[in-house]
Amino acid sequence: MNYKCVVQYEGTRYQGWQRQDSTENTLQGKIEAILTKMCDKKVEIQASGRTDAGVHALGQVMNFHIETEKSPEEIMAYLNQYLPEDVAVISIEIVSERFHSRLNARRKTYCYRVLNSTIPHIFERRYVYQLEKVMDGMQIANMQRAADHLVGTHDFKAFTSTKKSRKSTVRTIEKLQIEKVGDELQFTYIGNGFLYHMVRIITGTLLEVGMGEKSERDIPVILEAGLRERAGALAPAKGLTLMNVEY
Amino acid sequence: MNYKCVVQYEGTRYQGWQRQDSTENTLQGKIEAILTKMCDKKVEIQASGRTDAGVHALGQVMNFHIETEKSPEEIMAYLNQYLPEDVAVISIEIVSERFHSRLNARRKTYCYRVLNSTIPHIFERRYVYQLEKVMDGMQIANMQRAADHLVGTHDFKAFTSTKKSRKSTVRTIEKLQIEKVGDELQFTYIGNGFLYHMVRIITGTLLEVGMGEKSERDIPVILEAGLRERAGALAPAKGLTLMNVEY
Repeated sequence: MNYKCVVQYEGTRYQGWQRQDSTENTLQGKIEAILTKMCDKKVEIQASGRTDAGVHALGQVMNFHIETEKSPEEIMAYLNQYLPEDVAVISIEIVSERFHSRLNARRKTYCYRVLNSTIPHIFERRYVYQLEKVMDGMQIANMQRAADHLVGTHDFKAFTSTKKSRKSTVRTIEKLQIEKVGDELQFTYIGNGFLYHMVRIITGTLLEVGMGEKSERDIPVILEAGLRERAGALAPAKGLTLMNVEY
Repeated sequence: MNYKCVVQYEGTRYQGWQRQDSTENTLQGKIEAILTKMCDKKVEIQASGRTDAGVHALGQVMNFHIETEKSPEEIMAYLNQYLPEDVAVISIEIVSERFHSRLNARRKTYCYRVLNSTIPHIFERRYVYQLEKVMDGMQIANMQRAADHLVGTHDFKAFTSTKKSRKSTVRTIEKLQIEKVGDELQFTYIGNGFLYHMVRIITGTLLEVGMGEKSERDIPVILEAGLRERAGALAPAKGLTLMNVEY
């Protein structure tokens, strides 16, 4: 049977989603070890995509093929029993044999949270990046105008840390919206897929626009040039959360 | 000058507010050490009240008398620079010499958060007590009816862990409301002051009413008898947050 699960995690303690060697603390490694123990047979899981070290997820999606007499509810309970307290499976369903979390993903939503205040938010500190230079409405509007240049289908080569590769760096951003929510600036990204570090580099670049270090008009130039060094700094991982994946 | 500050903290790592001997990790001890260093002179702080080990605060109030050339903003910045990331001063003001955080407190609001779901909430796990037996609307209504018996001025002797003492155990609860917010049950307590463990014992007792282990009608009997052993279990510290203090 092929099982599809929605997984939440706080990424703080983890070296990202993807299993590496056994000394690394990864989410994939952790979850696979539990399923392998449950099935007494090596289990591999697929996720909608990797998340980097320190990145969180409210709605990561994974799937795995196993044979078991347990009901889906029992599998979920087993996983949650053995998972550490910063990871949880929040839903499980049986899906068609052909379902693949990564290949069938149609749309992903990420949220990057910036605490735009000189005062820390104790309870949210692990999930937001605190930017102490407080931006006003005009600066936020500048960022939104800069962001608007990135919506649509573009070659995002300048906005990824991937080493040279023949793979396409063309992606489509459906929506890139910056909202002020209390003391936070929330950057919502919706798209069909994102390159390595893409959301964090775009966020870092937009923040530089907000702070006046770059201009809104630099964005089309950076896109066109396709050079990573022209774009802004990589925003810290802790502000980023994978919100959901649609199929 | 007398300074009044609003302080936030995540109580997880602390052995409560009150300074004990120097080996203990307390909030009062931590903050006093920083102010003492800043002033090069022993500083003592007063809070609106102690919070127990593991209890959080969004709006604890403290005050202290110091002589300094720093502006209030500079004092706050100094504190936040040296405070660990789970404590923050979020406001500061100069108040009259006679202001006393504890003696002048007129009203306090506490919130006890219960996650009423079989599914953990990763991002809130440090701030909620997870009760896996999910309650329905009727059970919540039973708890609210039980809570209504406690509103008003009563002798809350049965609902405190204080050892025998001649001090009055009469307190006034202005409001005790249970609301379902998403998967959470939020117990809001407003009153002029609360006895040691009072909010947590009342919450534990109300949860037992919700689960059918006690009846709504037991509450007046427990109040009348004034015996701690008749009331319910002490609810865990992690679910409790001091929301604000009014003067």
